[in-house]
Amino acid sequence: MDWLKVFRVEKKNNTAKTARDRLMVAVAYQRDQLAGKSNGPVYLPKMREELLAVVRKYVQVPDDSVQFTVQREDGLEVLELNITLPEANA
Amino acid sequence: MDWLKVFRVEKKNNTAKTARDRLMVAVAYQRDQLAGKSNGPVYLPKMREELLAVVRKYVQVPDDSVQFTVQREDGLEVLELNITLPEANA
Repeated sequence: MDWLKVFRVEKKNNTAKTARDRLMVAVAYQRDQLAGKSNGPVYLPKMREELLAVVRKYVQVPDDSVQFTVQREDGLEVLELNITLPEANA
Repeated sequence: MDWLKVFRVEKKNNTAKTARDRLMVAVAYQRDQLAGKSNGPVYLPKMREELLAVVRKYVQVPDDSVQFTVQREDGLEVLELNITLPEANA
């Protein structure tokens, strides 16, 4: 996937409101609809929790700097974490 | 961001070659170019390693089921992990 294109679009959309460094983490699960399964792997919720825990360990920001969204449609579920980093982040 | 749209496109592109469940993890760092910083946060490489370790802990698949890519351009760096899941994953 051309991720640079994906995030470049996002960046343009965000320029006016936020000229800050950002960190984005996306976890997507895409189900093969031909297989007829109704759910993702049983470990998916736990794995996502641990991924978020890793991010929170490194990125210590106020809660209002973190946007957390889940998008779903048939056969596709995407969890996104969008973090505005503090100015002194290095 | 409309992630459903992003991954829906990806799915269409993949249908012919792979009718299997997939897991995708993307970590993107977007630098504010106005701030003139030359690098991301110092913790970024370590944090990404730990994120990948979490995924590998839960998703035990052969190495050839995992595609790992890093895309870079000025001010934007995206790491992507794209995993084809085994058929009996639940």
